[in-house]
Amino acid sequence: MKPLADIFHSAEARAHSETDEYSRDEVRLANRNSGALLETLGLDVTPTGTHYLLTHFDVPLLDAGAHELRFHGRFARPCTLTLDEIRAMPAETLPVTMECAGNGRAGVAPRSRSQPWIYEAVGTSEWTGTPLAPLIETAGPLADTVEISFTGADRGFDAGHLHAFGRSLTLQQLADLDVLLVYAMNGQPLLPQHGAPLRIIVPGWYGMASVKWLTDIEALAAPYQGYQQVKTYQFRDTREDVGRPITEIRVKSLMVPPGVPDWLTRARYVQAGRVDLVGRAWSGGGVPVARVEVGVGDDWFDAELEPSPGRYAWAKWRFAWDAAPGEHRLRCRATDANGAVQPLDAPWDVSGFANNAAQVVDVLVVKPSG
Amino acid sequence: MKPLADIFHSAEARAHSETDEYSRDEVRLANRNSGALLETLGLDVTPTGTHYLLTHFDVPLLDAGAHELRFHGRFARPCTLTLDEIRAMPAETLPVTMECAGNGRAGVAPRSRSQPWIYEAVGTSEWTGTPLAPLIETAGPLADTVEISFTGADRGFDAGHLHAFGRSLTLQQLADLDVLLVYAMNGQPLLPQHGAPLRIIVPGWYGMASVKWLTDIEALAAPYQGYQQVKTYQFRDTREDVGRPITEIRVKSLMVPPGVPDWLTRARYVQAGRVDLVGRAWSGGGVPVARVEVGVGDDWFDAELEPSPGRYAWAKWRFAWDAAPGEHRLRCRATDANGAVQPLDAPWDVSGFANNAAQVVDVLVVKPSG
Repeated sequence: MKPLADIFHSAEARAHSETDEYSRDEVRLANRNSGALLETLGLDVTPTGTHYLLTHFDVPLLDAGAHELRFHGRFARPCTLTLDEIRAMPAETLPVTMECAGNGRAGVAPRSRSQPWIYEAVGTSEWTGTPLAPLIETAGPLADTVEISFTGADRGFDAGHLHAFGRSLTLQQLADLDVLLVYAMNGQPLLPQHGAPLRIIVPGWYGMASVKWLTDIEALAAPYQGYQQVKTYQFRDTREDVGRPITEIRVKSLMVPPGVPDWLTRARYVQAGRVDLVGRAWSGGGVPVARVEVGVGDDWFDAELEPSPGRYAWAKWRFAWDAAPGEHRLRCRATDANGAVQPLDAPWDVSGFANNAAQVVDVLVVKPSG
Repeated sequence: MKPLADIFHSAEARAHSETDEYSRDEVRLANRNSGALLETLGLDVTPTGTHYLLTHFDVPLLDAGAHELRFHGRFARPCTLTLDEIRAMPAETLPVTMECAGNGRAGVAPRSRSQPWIYEAVGTSEWTGTPLAPLIETAGPLADTVEISFTGADRGFDAGHLHAFGRSLTLQQLADLDVLLVYAMNGQPLLPQHGAPLRIIVPGWYGMASVKWLTDIEALAAPYQGYQQVKTYQFRDTREDVGRPITEIRVKSLMVPPGVPDWLTRARYVQAGRVDLVGRAWSGGGVPVARVEVGVGDDWFDAELEPSPGRYAWAKWRFAWDAAPGEHRLRCRATDANGAVQPLDAPWDVSGFANNAAQVVDVLVVKPSG
């Protein structure tokens, strides 16, 4: 381990790995941050407790009764709201598919050493809260306001910078997005690890925008310079690249791996014959999924697509596969209503963000026994 | 990737790694299996959804309404019980600290390639169910019965063996242990990933004994030969070793890492002055923890120990540390009422089971700012 002073006092860029071997730091993050269980993708709502979690720092354990949300900065009417006051406002429940911007990072080579997601960092929950836009309007951004920032109670270091997790949205984005100020998830109060007692949900965007443990909403006369806004969560072709902000989720799909798994490799073992493949597909910005194809080796077939349970929620798909004995590589790829289609190979990004390459599931099909 | 046929058709032993680099298989498991968040160790009950999860195969999504538990084999009165019938029986709620037998595996060198837990595979929940022993008695094991086996609905391969997850207990163990037949966790119906609709909890033992998705209870006239009983979950000094069954949890303790973390390394940054360290300590078999010591470098200090919230639940401890600027290595170690004490170095086991070595937390202490 390098001297701690180096960790906390130097702004060294994230190392890359050229190999498919992972460091203890990456494994520690993988144990701590939890991915969805692909076998539950048949369900509209990810079972509580299995929605993916990416926690930058420590989960703050906040007192809901004492919690306050402060509106300050360039607001005409700065104010402070309690949880009870927010709960008394018009409530809305929205099923939202959320995905971590780092999902698929382990598939991008060379790999940025960070949380090494493979496919798992996605989930859908029913989020309950009150629409944020009317609250911002009530607080009244002054004429010089360009952005609204959102700050959580979670604090720590990233590449030598001590900061609280924060993000911002422009006034235009706030007008366009159905941002919810959320206090419940799947009909229960928010769990500590999901941002209790208060967070925002920015539907259609990658998860970094949906700030947890929300304490501050600030109106700003200049673009927000928070670390998680300007330093991370940017697409970069090279380390020197100035970066392009990560926003809407890219079109993607996943399947429930068929048959039964091998413990260590998670490879699949399937009885020959008709196999009902099912999975999910989603895109960002409220754009519907238009098509899902299933790949069996090099052949692609159209899957049957069900209506999505909500504008921002994933759609279910099905495909009846006639599985012949042998080894098969299954894949799935979605196309959205804008014509965006999943690539077969990982798109390049220095930090491994937004890898929406088609999932690969290797399957051994055997003759039915008995 | 090796040919799938090799994965499913050969009983190759788990590979060892001599390095601190991890394979994609290990990372896939680490993403999928989720560890507790150490910052929540101050709480008696692990927040729902953050209790550690080790899922051997796929989570089965079972229909609670149609679920049946079959008592069969060498019972005088074989029977089948529905969930409603079990819920109508005398109910008991027990706080139980559960730990995965593989917890700490990543600290054992050379490392067995499997789920690479560091410290996280432990949690405490309040489990509600009905005591199992009276049900076994009602079913009436015949005179030749030596063991009772418990089988779940989860199936898959391990080292070439296709099997449903199953474990057994002897009649004597059943008489000695407060085994609960469980349908609720923290006051809510069991979640799918925790064994819904029905599981057992074997308090004081490592987690492998607490079979999830329970479908079958069988009385056996010969020792159970299930894969997860005789092939895995055995202590072995060498691969050729016949093995000694893993049973009760070894004495252990963990601390909430103080201060704030660095994202990538999880190293800690602390302001100098009084730091209130808190953590948990537990042992197996209902044996209370007698002492917890906190190590600061090579110096050890006694922590203050609170009464445990239950015979099988972890105890909270506290230690006021006067933190001086500089780099410090913090550790904690517990001693139980039987005099068992945590080692400072990982005990050897071929599969990396039951590593109860003292936790190490590296901390940079800085002069208070402002």
